[in-house]
Amino acid sequence: MAALQQRASELMPMRIARSWQSASMFRVYLLFTLFSLLTASSFCIEQSMGMGIEGSHIVMKTSCSSFFFNSQVNNAQGWKVIPEECEELVAQYMNGGQYAMDMEGVAVAALDYLKGIKAGEDGKDVVIFDIDETALSNLPYYRKHRYGAEVFDHPLFSKWVEEGVAPAIPAMLSLYRALQADNWGIVFMTGRTENQRNITSVNLLAVGYGEWTTLLLRSPSEVHLSAVEYKTQKRLQLQEQGYRIWSSLGDQWSDLAGAAVGNRTFKLPNPMYHIP
Amino acid sequence: MAALQQRASELMPMRIARSWQSASMFRVYLLFTLFSLLTASSFCIEQSMGMGIEGSHIVMKTSCSSFFFNSQVNNAQGWKVIPEECEELVAQYMNGGQYAMDMEGVAVAALDYLKGIKAGEDGKDVVIFDIDETALSNLPYYRKHRYGAEVFDHPLFSKWVEEGVAPAIPAMLSLYRALQADNWGIVFMTGRTENQRNITSVNLLAVGYGEWTTLLLRSPSEVHLSAVEYKTQKRLQLQEQGYRIWSSLGDQWSDLAGAAVGNRTFKLPNPMYHIP
Repeated sequence: MAALQQRASELMPMRIARSWQSASMFRVYLLFTLFSLLTASSFCIEQSMGMGIEGSHIVMKTSCSSFFFNSQVNNAQGWKVIPEECEELVAQYMNGGQYAMDMEGVAVAALDYLKGIKAGEDGKDVVIFDIDETALSNLPYYRKHRYGAEVFDHPLFSKWVEEGVAPAIPAMLSLYRALQADNWGIVFMTGRTENQRNITSVNLLAVGYGEWTTLLLRSPSEVHLSAVEYKTQKRLQLQEQGYRIWSSLGDQWSDLAGAAVGNRTFKLPNPMYHIP
Repeated sequence: MAALQQRASELMPMRIARSWQSASMFRVYLLFTLFSLLTASSFCIEQSMGMGIEGSHIVMKTSCSSFFFNSQVNNAQGWKVIPEECEELVAQYMNGGQYAMDMEGVAVAALDYLKGIKAGEDGKDVVIFDIDETALSNLPYYRKHRYGAEVFDHPLFSKWVEEGVAPAIPAMLSLYRALQADNWGIVFMTGRTENQRNITSVNLLAVGYGEWTTLLLRSPSEVHLSAVEYKTQKRLQLQEQGYRIWSSLGDQWSDLAGAAVGNRTFKLPNPMYHIP
């Protein structure tokens, strides 16, 4: 009996985990969560912290905010879409002010660290900014594509990129300006490809990123590399060119992994998609 | 004028950041947040995701959950106490079911990864569990000490530890049992000191952690080391002894940094305290 229970507690989580990679499997998670909540006191349910949905949606609320925590700290990896039951809650997070507040918190923490360092006059002390969901926001695109509940459509997303109208993320633009005023070099490093260099520059300039030390994109020979391989290679090249990388900022842990990321890295929120 | 605004946006965040390390400074953050919210649409405020406080407490709600995100992804470092305005919200998170749900999410993700690996028969394939806020919960202690809004009192906390009555974290106990059934060796590695070995063993056994490969605590010669230095040294010693470390689980990023943490690490939620 005890063995049976153990076996069950062993299998259930696996099915839940896969559900994070397959929206259709997510019902299993809901069932498990429902079971968990039925065994919890109503006090617990009322008090539950979640993504802002009340009453009968408490199950969705709780399971989705568990997905939120575990995706943002990089415990949940390899997911291709958000659980479809989370779409409304992710939409609320992205549109409702909390995303912007969390971004302000990132800017605060990064500036607090970098204020403690004196950037030299030679322009070689640099901070690396990722672009998508870091310097620029693709929220207008994701609003039309279910906030990550749809499988990523590369051609369609490229079309959006080539419009060159992605807005700045306000907290990151403020951070960029504060760092420039303190003599920091800003390196933009993106998974976008070289053929998108011009439109990316146009977009950055249009929203207020007035200048940068260098803008690094994937060359044709780098397209086959993983995000970590590509970005590490680029960072090592920067070091060979005499740049001192103090910090990296990105919405994906793959922006912050590998060699030469700097002494402190800063993870920006992004519950909409995962890049391994 | 533009320069002035820039200077302002530059200084404000620094004062906010410090406020995360000094509850008395937190009012500055509230003022800034209030300003941010006044400039946001009421739609945004209503939609805001936070830690569950309504209406007039929306400012606290938003700023506290920004602290939550930034502390949990390791952007905010070096904080000694939680912002006192967050005490009630952290209490709700810890007591209200969400903490338990997030822990289940961690167990799910860890088991999903480890199920893909076949632990050998020699008992040398191991997973490292931290103890406090990982295998065991000190929530009964923190309930009496303002959920981290009080400065850490080492003698008082040691007294609590020596009672040996810390409950298990249910999701981690389930994970432990599932891993044992799959032949994994479990290593407990804790910042607790050798003189607490007996009471720690008694406590682990009492709540259901029936056996382990080894229990590692700080020897007198290791007390001066940082958490990362101490835990890295211990992990390297394990490797020298022929153990294969596949994963580390802990509530602090300092449990998961340095050499030999394994191929995947799992960050558990803990908004109550930070160990550098």
